[in-house]
Amino acid sequence: MRTDSFLNMWRAALCTFCLALGCGCATQPVPTSRGTGDLGVVVERARGTLAIVDTSQRTVLGEVPGLGDLSHASVVFSRDGRFAFVFGRDGALSKVDLLSRAVVQRVQQAGNAIGGAISQDGRIVVAQNYEPGGIRAFDADTLAPLAEVPAVYGNEGRRSKVVGLADAPGNRFVYALFDAGEIWVSDFSDPRAPRTEKYSAGRQPYDGLITPDGRFYLAGLFGEDGVAMLDLWRPSQGVRKILHHWGQGEEHLPVYKMPHLRGWAMADGLLWLPAVGKHEVWVVDARTWEEVAHIPVIGQPVFVMAQPDGRQVWVNFALPDNGKVQVIDVLSRAVVKLLEPGRAILHLEFQPRGGEVWLSARDDHRVVVLGTDHFDLRQSITLDAPSGIFFSSRAAKIGF
Amino acid sequence: MRTDSFLNMWRAALCTFCLALGCGCATQPVPTSRGTGDLGVVVERARGTLAIVDTSQRTVLGEVPGLGDLSHASVVFSRDGRFAFVFGRDGALSKVDLLSRAVVQRVQQAGNAIGGAISQDGRIVVAQNYEPGGIRAFDADTLAPLAEVPAVYGNEGRRSKVVGLADAPGNRFVYALFDAGEIWVSDFSDPRAPRTEKYSAGRQPYDGLITPDGRFYLAGLFGEDGVAMLDLWRPSQGVRKILHHWGQGEEHLPVYKMPHLRGWAMADGLLWLPAVGKHEVWVVDARTWEEVAHIPVIGQPVFVMAQPDGRQVWVNFALPDNGKVQVIDVLSRAVVKLLEPGRAILHLEFQPRGGEVWLSARDDHRVVVLGTDHFDLRQSITLDAPSGIFFSSRAAKIGF
Repeated sequence: MRTDSFLNMWRAALCTFCLALGCGCATQPVPTSRGTGDLGVVVERARGTLAIVDTSQRTVLGEVPGLGDLSHASVVFSRDGRFAFVFGRDGALSKVDLLSRAVVQRVQQAGNAIGGAISQDGRIVVAQNYEPGGIRAFDADTLAPLAEVPAVYGNEGRRSKVVGLADAPGNRFVYALFDAGEIWVSDFSDPRAPRTEKYSAGRQPYDGLITPDGRFYLAGLFGEDGVAMLDLWRPSQGVRKILHHWGQGEEHLPVYKMPHLRGWAMADGLLWLPAVGKHEVWVVDARTWEEVAHIPVIGQPVFVMAQPDGRQVWVNFALPDNGKVQVIDVLSRAVVKLLEPGRAILHLEFQPRGGEVWLSARDDHRVVVLGTDHFDLRQSITLDAPSGIFFSSRAAKIGF
Repeated sequence: MRTDSFLNMWRAALCTFCLALGCGCATQPVPTSRGTGDLGVVVERARGTLAIVDTSQRTVLGEVPGLGDLSHASVVFSRDGRFAFVFGRDGALSKVDLLSRAVVQRVQQAGNAIGGAISQDGRIVVAQNYEPGGIRAFDADTLAPLAEVPAVYGNEGRRSKVVGLADAPGNRFVYALFDAGEIWVSDFSDPRAPRTEKYSAGRQPYDGLITPDGRFYLAGLFGEDGVAMLDLWRPSQGVRKILHHWGQGEEHLPVYKMPHLRGWAMADGLLWLPAVGKHEVWVVDARTWEEVAHIPVIGQPVFVMAQPDGRQVWVNFALPDNGKVQVIDVLSRAVVKLLEPGRAILHLEFQPRGGEVWLSARDDHRVVVLGTDHFDLRQSITLDAPSGIFFSSRAAKIGF
């Protein structure tokens, strides 16, 4: 492991050197000419590497090393689908060219970061940071810094961890302040002078998501039961508390892994979300925000993800059930399939029109591709401890 | 006009000749290396030409001539976003490389065609034909023919015009038979041997659409008032007739142009559709299929299109109001803006995340790009009699 880290550091240093010279060294081959709509990346966390994949051929096109600490890494795409912006846990922000398979820009923007987002117009990349707490905005072309919104709260000038960052229409970004218990909306219409509105949210919002139309922002609360909801079409109404029973409640079951809210799903006008600490998926009516069903599942759900066509919802689980995946039929609200695609299923990503799903089986060092209709194995791809999977079609979506 | 046609024929013949030789003539320059997620095409109908546009820079990158009769042309994209499949009214199907800006394949597949679609997996391109009535499927790579489903109905072996073709999940295609009064669903899981289910729909379905999740297929009826609806998640329930008052009703106002059903919009869980022959946009609850509002507008609506964020709905009109566009606020269901962007506004297309809209002003020979928040003019692009506008981000969507 230490050798790996050393190698990665060396690679990163070499890469930076090459970039500084602008030379045509091994990390900057001539870009390939091809469409970028069917490209994607898979995070190989342990090696600090991105694998570039072709989702039409279901193949690995190449690997880009030197990306640092990619635990909990997240990725967004430029609006042309050519570049991936990679937010590392170590606060580095890297811009990777999927065509030349090289790091073309890289900045160390914070000490401890937890993901990022890209503006509606594709011109502003924003990172959300634990340390120092706040968000920072960068020019998507050059990664030159544009602006910072420090998450300062209270009278003592303390800074809060920022979580749940999501892009919203109008070049706005919405995020939650874990320590301050607030939701902030920053409008980057002027990229160098963002204007921020602040809303009281509840105790310790720990993750957030925005609905696919960019209208409702939801933040799960860690310090109390329930979810904070802000209607961005009517922000003057402030935050409304919904799903009062969502959370650990009085039972306080052990929670092995906090579920990812970004994994919540919309299908059939309903929101499908992982219960906290319970073996259940909850179904909520997105018009009334009332629960309409609790569906029993085999373990503690982590990601609850709807197929793009909304026909089925896929669920993966925390330890000890993280080798299993269950598929829920949306119409009958019943589990119709139990899959065991490999050891440690960390993430899944659907093709944009939903025919296939890619799942990372970290401890089997492979990604498996399944058909969503018949659960048939379409491909098995060997990769080093794969975790997050991100397809370039995210570039065209709100809230990804 | 005859000279133009002759020139176009000559260009097409030359192009075919060049393709046959595989030579590097003027129609096949070396492809550019760039992302394809922000590309699009604008139909220049009178010249049988496609303009290739860059939606990030708001510029024309080049033009591809020789595409024949492009009146009522429609376009779909390969799943990598690199190729546009162009369905001409004259029955020609052309495959255009957006990177090299050249026609790379072209087949004369019918005598009179009215658009097409591409399968969920991107491997099958299907054309819908008036003459001979039916659909024909082609390999997306080579345009080699795969299968045909002739729209034969009744006892005398007559063939119906096919309209309203839409792709559905599972490599299915859904379409309506104008003369037969039926909706057909063809499953191309085996591309060379499609299986077809047939449903009675009502008198003279004249256009159709599928909801963005690929679940509900709706066909407007010309021969009677109302809309035929098929739930593809529960096809055994058959077609249900909804919106019984939709149509000309007893007043039989003159209809200057039949509204495009493909221009129906979903926003806020509601369907927004053009009334036929009336100066109204209808709002329908997509759960109950009941009307919830009739919104008065300035003319007979043609396209009623929601922004991708669902915040506003844009409407253009038939003669004599085809120089006007109205914008409806979805929350208040009121018209909030009247625009006059140019003469003969034939089509509009939103950027995939909704920040800008492109509108073709045919008789002013330009495309105008407006911001959707403040309706400010971002760009004016000179083109020859522009009509349809199609962005490559459609490749990632169901039903486009």
